[in-house]
Amino acid sequence: MALTSFIEEPKFDVYRERFAEHFILEREDGILVARMHTGGDVAVWGLELHRALGQLFKTVAADPENEVLILTGTGDYWLRDIDSESFNAVEKDESTFRREGYFQWYRDGMKLQENIIWDVDIPTISAINGPGFHSEFALLHDITICTDDTRLVEPHYHVGLAPGDALYLVLQELIGYKRANYAMYTAQNITAEQALEWGLVNEVVAREDLVDRARSLAEMIIRTQPNPIVRRLTSRIVKRRWRRLLTDDFEMHFGHEMWGTMVHRQDHGEMDTRAALNEG
Amino acid sequence: MALTSFIEEPKFDVYRERFAEHFILEREDGILVARMHTGGDVAVWGLELHRALGQLFKTVAADPENEVLILTGTGDYWLRDIDSESFNAVEKDESTFRREGYFQWYRDGMKLQENIIWDVDIPTISAINGPGFHSEFALLHDITICTDDTRLVEPHYHVGLAPGDALYLVLQELIGYKRANYAMYTAQNITAEQALEWGLVNEVVAREDLVDRARSLAEMIIRTQPNPIVRRLTSRIVKRRWRRLLTDDFEMHFGHEMWGTMVHRQDHGEMDTRAALNEG
Amino acid sequence: MALTSFIEEPKFDVYRERFAEHFILEREDGILVARMHTGGDVAVWGLELHRALGQLFKTVAADPENEVLILTGTGDYWLRDIDSESFNAVEKDESTFRREGYFQWYRDGMKLQENIIWDVDIPTISAINGPGFHSEFALLHDITICTDDTRLVEPHYHVGLAPGDALYLVLQELIGYKRANYAMYTAQNITAEQALEWGLVNEVVAREDLVDRARSLAEMIIRTQPNPIVRRLTSRIVKRRWRRLLTDDFEMHFGHEMWGTMVHRQDHGEMDTRAALNEG
Amino acid sequence: MALTSFIEEPKFDVYRERFAEHFILEREDGILVARMHTGGDVAVWGLELHRALGQLFKTVAADPENEVLILTGTGDYWLRDIDSESFNAVEKDESTFRREGYFQWYRDGMKLQENIIWDVDIPTISAINGPGFHSEFALLHDITICTDDTRLVEPHYHVGLAPGDALYLVLQELIGYKRANYAMYTAQNITAEQALEWGLVNEVVAREDLVDRARSLAEMIIRTQPNPIVRRLTSRIVKRRWRRLLTDDFEMHFGHEMWGTMVHRQDHGEMDTRAALNEG
Amino acid sequence: MALTSFIEEPKFDVYRERFAEHFILEREDGILVARMHTGGDVAVWGLELHRALGQLFKTVAADPENEVLILTGTGDYWLRDIDSESFNAVEKDESTFRREGYFQWYRDGMKLQENIIWDVDIPTISAINGPGFHSEFALLHDITICTDDTRLVEPHYHVGLAPGDALYLVLQELIGYKRANYAMYTAQNITAEQALEWGLVNEVVAREDLVDRARSLAEMIIRTQPNPIVRRLTSRIVKRRWRRLLTDDFEMHFGHEMWGTMVHRQDHGEMDTRAALNEG
Amino acid sequence: MALTSFIEEPKFDVYRERFAEHFILEREDGILVARMHTGGDVAVWGLELHRALGQLFKTVAADPENEVLILTGTGDYWLRDIDSESFNAVEKDESTFRREGYFQWYRDGMKLQENIIWDVDIPTISAINGPGFHSEFALLHDITICTDDTRLVEPHYHVGLAPGDALYLVLQELIGYKRANYAMYTAQNITAEQALEWGLVNEVVAREDLVDRARSLAEMIIRTQPNPIVRRLTSRIVKRRWRRLLTDDFEMHFGHEMWGTMVHRQDHGEMDTRAALNEG
Repeated sequence: MALTSFIEEPKFDVYRERFAEHFILEREDGILVARMHTGGDVAVWGLELHRALGQLFKTVAADPENEVLILTGTGDYWLRDIDSESFNAVEKDESTFRREGYFQWYRDGMKLQENIIWDVDIPTISAINGPGFHSEFALLHDITICTDDTRLVEPHYHVGLAPGDALYLVLQELIGYKRANYAMYTAQNITAEQALEWGLVNEVVAREDLVDRARSLAEMIIRTQPNPIVRRLTSRIVKRRWRRLLTDDFEMHFGHEMWGTMVHRQDHGEMDTRAALNEG
Repeated sequence: MALTSFIEEPKFDVYRERFAEHFILEREDGILVARMHTGGDVAVWGLELHRALGQLFKTVAADPENEVLILTGTGDYWLRDIDSESFNAVEKDESTFRREGYFQWYRDGMKLQENIIWDVDIPTISAINGPGFHSEFALLHDITICTDDTRLVEPHYHVGLAPGDALYLVLQELIGYKRANYAMYTAQNITAEQALEWGLVNEVVAREDLVDRARSLAEMIIRTQPNPIVRRLTSRIVKRRWRRLLTDDFEMHFGHEMWGTMVHRQDHGEMDTRAALNEG
Repeated sequence: MALTSFIEEPKFDVYRERFAEHFILEREDGILVARMHTGGDVAVWGLELHRALGQLFKTVAADPENEVLILTGTGDYWLRDIDSESFNAVEKDESTFRREGYFQWYRDGMKLQENIIWDVDIPTISAINGPGFHSEFALLHDITICTDDTRLVEPHYHVGLAPGDALYLVLQELIGYKRANYAMYTAQNITAEQALEWGLVNEVVAREDLVDRARSLAEMIIRTQPNPIVRRLTSRIVKRRWRRLLTDDFEMHFGHEMWGTMVHRQDHGEMDTRAALNEG
Repeated sequence: MALTSFIEEPKFDVYRERFAEHFILEREDGILVARMHTGGDVAVWGLELHRALGQLFKTVAADPENEVLILTGTGDYWLRDIDSESFNAVEKDESTFRREGYFQWYRDGMKLQENIIWDVDIPTISAINGPGFHSEFALLHDITICTDDTRLVEPHYHVGLAPGDALYLVLQELIGYKRANYAMYTAQNITAEQALEWGLVNEVVAREDLVDRARSLAEMIIRTQPNPIVRRLTSRIVKRRWRRLLTDDFEMHFGHEMWGTMVHRQDHGEMDTRAALNEG
Repeated sequence: MALTSFIEEPKFDVYRERFAEHFILEREDGILVARMHTGGDVAVWGLELHRALGQLFKTVAADPENEVLILTGTGDYWLRDIDSESFNAVEKDESTFRREGYFQWYRDGMKLQENIIWDVDIPTISAINGPGFHSEFALLHDITICTDDTRLVEPHYHVGLAPGDALYLVLQELIGYKRANYAMYTAQNITAEQALEWGLVNEVVAREDLVDRARSLAEMIIRTQPNPIVRRLTSRIVKRRWRRLLTDDFEMHFGHEMWGTMVHRQDHGEMDTRAALNEG
Repeated sequence: MALTSFIEEPKFDVYRERFAEHFILEREDGILVARMHTGGDVAVWGLELHRALGQLFKTVAADPENEVLILTGTGDYWLRDIDSESFNAVEKDESTFRREGYFQWYRDGMKLQENIIWDVDIPTISAINGPGFHSEFALLHDITICTDDTRLVEPHYHVGLAPGDALYLVLQELIGYKRANYAMYTAQNITAEQALEWGLVNEVVAREDLVDRARSLAEMIIRTQPNPIVRRLTSRIVKRRWRRLLTDDFEMHFGHEMWGTMVHRQDHGEMDTRAALNEG
């Protein structure tokens, strides 16, 4: 017998409860579907969800019983609104912001993107269920499908921030520098049709079929390659270039965005994300 | 009081005059429009303009009162002809060419591309006013719009040169290796329509509306992000990957082109750039 | 007179014979056409051809009388079937596989891709003559044309392998991560039309015109740039980014694929490549 | 009030207990000292400790009350022996090894190194308390001090493994390629004196003073830079190049080592690590 | 005659005057000696000199009559004191600091390092005339010699800043990560002897011989390689890896330092640089 | 039976004869000792040997019966003299030089370095038998030992060339930028003692013991790791960073050197390599 024991990681039943406030988790035959929500309805963007996403990816990755991850949202939007009170807790005064900006924006924001790419070593599918901002962690999934009314927007510049939290970087890679620059400077709403044409998403499907289609892709991925280790080796190959790109550029981007928040204080409570989604 | 004083950089009124032979410079509300010309008409490509572009970018960058740069040309062409006499001064004899090839082709050519990417830290828009060669410094602007009759050509290979001065490198990045290779080997005239479809330009507009549209984009860029420092941080993020790409590959490309000019002396006076533009 | 003599490399007449079992080689005016075949008919994929391709590229590269390389196949398919017996010789028992997997899969597979990019320093054109797998060494040619019935498939994942032998890596670069992921996970048959739209091939032509069109491109390439050294310098510039990409990522990819073959032994004799080509 | 709550990470008192089997954790004024042990004595290397290190680094990183991390060992050796039974559980049969080799060697081994560099964002000091193998996670700390009888050895090659688990890579960077190659091929015992001369460690101190000296460095680090955010920004700058190096090369190294374990099965129970430490 | 004329760059006699407040410039046989000073005595570090250095490098580079650059200081110190009033002008209030921090710290600081590496294309020699901070632009010269009482210190961490302005990055490369980390966290005074042993400087000479020795090296460099173009090509090869390193990492470092200045406002007037030089 | 046969590579007995004019090849127990010579005496550097080295490395790599490569020279010098007539054949007239400079300098020179790093996948040991130039292909071996009278010199700059053929690049990596710069600009004779101290060589031994010591290292390398595939995987890990470094920088270096040869024609017949070795 070994001299010592392993420090075990949480099992599904435990972490399903732990994450319940932010995600509805279901798992069947190794396919884990994680659905973001806030109070059971469309997810509202707050620092709690921002952190929970990175925590979720890390937790999912540590459980070898997960074989494919599907991430989706609730209702008609990926993300439409901001939880002003959530951000106010950090932005309320200068001294809190100086400290918590590091922990809650930068550190949590780094782990949000890094964990889906460095830790999660299984095939991943995002199913974007409608218009929204902060789509970069969806786009960092191996395969992305979306509803036909989906619109993706990079709103940082228009709400007072330098675009350093990875969405712009992901767009640069996936649709090319010029399109990404234009989308970012103009807060362009990229439609599902454009996203498909530009290679940003893989399929456009009706909302009612979205999760079923994602599941059916996941089943095919498991069926055609039954060995779980080969699936993981494949996943590592798939995410290799993202690791190189994020390592080379992400912290330069994010450091400059953070510096910018100190130069030009913005107030998330005042940000009009609906206007950025042309829904003002 | 500080012990010493700053060595000041030139002000707008001074450098507007300094560059007048090559550019019409106008500035309003921080938007600097630089229009290339030769004798008031379509710009003719000579070593003087080649150097002046790099000098202009450096000068524009050093003046904190510039907030957006718009670069455009005069008349119906971006660049159509070569100033043979200009090149003859360098190519006239072997010994002059060996020395001045380094200074006037390589060094000025490096700074031409580097200064727009390393020094200019504000949003940049190029407005390509018609068919032309040497479009890489236009394509290195953050956003590019062009007229509907624009055709872009990479003519190096067809006029006797290895394609190392950055245009081919920029095309590789923006339209992919295979398209760039084909365009380069065949001196393909890429039309405005193709350029738009391939993500090389952002908008195609009628010539008479070109500069107005560029200005209107510039105004939007300033209006939506009023803080000049956040605009600069954004600009640095935008140009980050160009810095990496140019550092990694540009001097390999350019060094090999220069070596090639010594192996196979070409004569700019003999180059038929109109033929390359299918206008022979 | 020099103190010693050169160790000469083989001449065309010699290596034409040496490679005859795998390639029909013809050379006219410096344009070398290499046509893969097996017994005069559609090439069948075996370890012998796998090695011969790398050997061919190295040999072609060492002969300064070659000026453009055209690679094509025989009949209606690029590659449709696997020579089971060829793979069985390596896969027959565990101990042989452990040793020969290194030499015949990994080492030969590395040189296959490396030699076309590092050694061949002339313009290269691939003419894909129909549907097939293992198209990455075709896609690594500078220019690629294909027949209108061509379909390209990345079948590794579906036949039990992690996709590490460069095809997936080449697709990532040429059609973007998301499209490449989807094509790989689903063994998508990319049609000639899609390949053209996505910038994977440069021209789609009828099968009967395929090699003539390739030759005509090759002649144009020689005619417009008559200096053989400038052509070679151009070729080196063209292949520069492939060298960087392959160096950075290829051996990570391939090492993981090889590890995977030890974890999940697959049997090439059992692989249904026709099914992957939707021709089961 | 925010709409949702944070998913909290464990507090010190909780994780001190959780890790007690592998580490004695003490914290004073933000300085966390983690001492590896097995049953209270010299740490014995098993897969449980291998995983626990990565888990520890991640946990330490998630607690903002940690300000400096000191890692050390127990007794007269850093690591001297292997827990054969621990490895046997994975190596007992081919099928277990194929699966668990991925999870327990590769995945845990990646996170071991990545978590100290990507997640831990505070200054780190390792205090190597005597001779040992597997010193790479010590050397990845910002500062390293060691006892005067310390000897560091890279034993992989001599016990039947390709040296891909990061120790050789770390040595390549810290002492140069040639010295690292020689040390690896010959299983050289690098002495404390050599380590100091070659820039591998920063100070050599007597064993009885080791932890006190580490503490005193940690106190100085906190005292001279009282702002916890500036300390974290500094830490991120410090670890930047490790992130680039590990991203570029580590998974190529490790994938090849793993492949090698399938080609040439070794048996940890048979490995004579004392011989590698010249203590056979 | 060419259609247009060159926009000329300033000649030596002009820029010698322009820079006189910060540098004594002398040129003989193409060897330009630039001696930093403040009021004729030991240079005092202010934002004016900080900017002037980058301006000087750019100006020197643009004059093809310069063949070797020697940079040195005045008196017994490289840099010992800070011009508090100079920094106060930027740090006096929050709003000035937010704006001018970008322009005077970050932008000028980037150009300071970039111009010596990207623009100056001739051999460069620094002659460090005594103890000092901010030695990175000296160390970025091709060859460095110093006096026997020289001590080099990286004081950022100890005066309240994250070490992102290139000195720490240069040390990481030249003396290795571990030594650089230790030197930075402890504000170690690296002596001339250590600097020589660690490959940080090339020769240690008596102060009275310092500039003569630098001149004699410069003369040798010109004499042995009389062709000015080959000298410039050599210089470009020499500085290649600095360009790659600075591009990859410098702006990440500096962005994080700048962010840190907003989190933890420091006051240059309060900084005790003499204490950092152990001369308090 | 497989449908086709392998195109076989030459066996030892055949290539021993083929290379006899340039190398004495002996093989025992898989250890191949290759001894450079010219007419049985100290090797004289000519273009024939320059090419033969690359050819040798490629040939050795293709024969799976080679397990360790030892490279050494004949007599008291590694390389002392140049075969003027050999170089004259290329340099005799401008037009020959323009063409053959590409083939015989650049292409052969690239393959010389690339083949030892990309193709040779077994452990390699160089045994430098005395003073000499062109030591980079020795230093690119995994382990290097040398005689106590060895002196290594980088003479390019002093004989009229930009230092782009890899020796300077190898020195930059192995002894650091500053030492490499100084050695290059001053044609420093690095002694065996310095080489050992700076980590450039691994052991210094008496000339009469040199090859025996290399053999004994080779035997140890085979004995301690009996599996030939694990040795090859180890070799690939060992050479990984050289592949990255050479890919990133070597062709930039070499292209600039070649351009320089066209700017400033040098005459190998006139080069005084003995003077560079302080033996004039």
